[in-house]
Amino acid sequence: MNAKRIGKQTVRLNEGVRILSAASTVSKKEGEGPLGKYFDKIVEDSTFGEKSWELAESHFIQENMQLAVKKAGLKMNDIDYLLCGDLLNQCTASTFGIMNFQIPFFGLFGACSTMGESMSLGAMLIDGGYANHTLVGASSHFCGAEKQFRAPLALGNQRPPTASWTVTGDGSVVLGRKGNFPCITEITTGKIMDMGITDANNMGAAMAPAAVDVLLNHFQDTGRTPQDYDVIATGDLGEIGRSLVVDLMKKEGYTLDGRYTDCGIEIFDKNKQDTHNGGSGCACSAVTFCGYYYPKLMSGAIGRMLFIPTGALLSPTSSQQGQSIPGIAHGVCIEGCGEKGVKQ
Amino acid sequence: MNAKRIGKQTVRLNEGVRILSAASTVSKKEGEGPLGKYFDKIVEDSTFGEKSWELAESHFIQENMQLAVKKAGLKMNDIDYLLCGDLLNQCTASTFGIMNFQIPFFGLFGACSTMGESMSLGAMLIDGGYANHTLVGASSHFCGAEKQFRAPLALGNQRPPTASWTVTGDGSVVLGRKGNFPCITEITTGKIMDMGITDANNMGAAMAPAAVDVLLNHFQDTGRTPQDYDVIATGDLGEIGRSLVVDLMKKEGYTLDGRYTDCGIEIFDKNKQDTHNGGSGCACSAVTFCGYYYPKLMSGAIGRMLFIPTGALLSPTSSQQGQSIPGIAHGVCIEGCGEKGVKQ
Repeated sequence: MNAKRIGKQTVRLNEGVRILSAASTVSKKEGEGPLGKYFDKIVEDSTFGEKSWELAESHFIQENMQLAVKKAGLKMNDIDYLLCGDLLNQCTASTFGIMNFQIPFFGLFGACSTMGESMSLGAMLIDGGYANHTLVGASSHFCGAEKQFRAPLALGNQRPPTASWTVTGDGSVVLGRKGNFPCITEITTGKIMDMGITDANNMGAAMAPAAVDVLLNHFQDTGRTPQDYDVIATGDLGEIGRSLVVDLMKKEGYTLDGRYTDCGIEIFDKNKQDTHNGGSGCACSAVTFCGYYYPKLMSGAIGRMLFIPTGALLSPTSSQQGQSIPGIAHGVCIEGCGEKGVKQ
Repeated sequence: MNAKRIGKQTVRLNEGVRILSAASTVSKKEGEGPLGKYFDKIVEDSTFGEKSWELAESHFIQENMQLAVKKAGLKMNDIDYLLCGDLLNQCTASTFGIMNFQIPFFGLFGACSTMGESMSLGAMLIDGGYANHTLVGASSHFCGAEKQFRAPLALGNQRPPTASWTVTGDGSVVLGRKGNFPCITEITTGKIMDMGITDANNMGAAMAPAAVDVLLNHFQDTGRTPQDYDVIATGDLGEIGRSLVVDLMKKEGYTLDGRYTDCGIEIFDKNKQDTHNGGSGCACSAVTFCGYYYPKLMSGAIGRMLFIPTGALLSPTSSQQGQSIPGIAHGVCIEGCGEKGVKQ
């Protein structure tokens, strides 16, 4: 009854679920970064013409999800389920972004791991036979996140070197059953890991243990090593978190070499863009995957990728009450098209 | 490939997913209500010995989920996935409530519809072959919710007659494959419905259209009528929302008679308990299902039930910015044991 489970935390999909399209819409800052040319749309005005940062984020979601569906050659009506989430209180960016689509909706909260969570559940709903197409994604907005989690931007607070820069934008994919597209083959679902970190300006350290837990379980469950992947990319650990992951994995006997990176490192040029530890936010891994990695999986330049969006599970209230910042991560294994890809 | 879909918004599970156990833990107020004797545990001190309302809610979750697993005759280690959510910013009640369990976790945000969302996804993960057991639930806390969504309790604000009373507690179930237990047979997933309601003290009206949408789609997709169910129970519409649903369904040609109720009406005695429109919050439908309806499904007193937790998708920020309060609802069809039940 349970042949799809291949270990304690991993499932293998029957025939793989195809990623039919990927769309990324970002703000000016991301457009100026090293991945700028890969994004579908760069919005110069980060209010997107709206009267609040919260509504601006909804606007990013709405336009980008419409673009993902269009790129898949589908209509919104072809989507059976929509799964997404964001960082705002009660996920209102998602609510107001997608409500006009009128699609059955599962709201998610995985903090910045949401892209991994939405891809995992969206893929299982298709593979299990409950849907032909799902639309899944994640979003964040620098201004809305700073206002809510740290301090209003107008205060001009100095940011410590461990701080990350929340990515503004939305990354979304359409999942389906068939065709010569990159393929989700395995899903390694994360547990909440808490190492007692309490500094809301050092998320990389808070999330690194959760990424390590997913990496270890994924390798144990699949019997593979890091060298079986062309790319391993965590979500938004930045420089500090990445180096912690490398060290922690080394202690466990795994060597993570240059093929391991973090989307938060890739998306900004920390020297030129004043982004300190790197990019963060639900959109960090979402837009980096959709804009930068998806075309490489499509062309066959990447044969197999382990994508691990990472999330810090805090609220301003929990931080003010002195609680720690637990982390979570969700691993998705994706095989590319062409010779290097296994499944096509 | 998609035989499980039986209409636009409904899927039918292969062999049904069994609800192996249900646990409910509530505070003194719910214990004094008409359903008091049905709950597993009544906690006299609603702080549950914790130093904040937020941590108190986590305590309700932790103890009640442990109880659900124990009642199923399982150990926490037997659970493949945990899915739950709550109303607090960034769902921290769930994070701190479940993090010590060390189970792969999908965090959800469906506002007060969360019990329907968690049962839907938790059931599909089993039915699709990805899990043997899932633990799913939802929680809320009156004091934490009032502080966050309306005003600090210490202000002593007067509550308008349309206001609801957020239920304090946690309701959780363990889902599995086999045995003579109540059975989830169909899932009708809701869309976000927005009728432009902006009064955060009139959630019943905000959520009623979402419940109606799920009812209509469920009846159309399954070919049944309200009279094919022994009980139809929405989540937390209260008196006002229930009468709106009855009227709206009548216009669509469906008669909802005494078999249609709302968990927010059942859980409190509005005359004796000063709860105005009725109970609300994620825990309202969760504890009412787990405490009151589950034993009736188990005994065969209820043959078929349509359970529709309802949620209002607002945040204090979205309300303060003048946004409307969209609603969502998630329908789960459950068949009981014994002669009246169909599936056993």
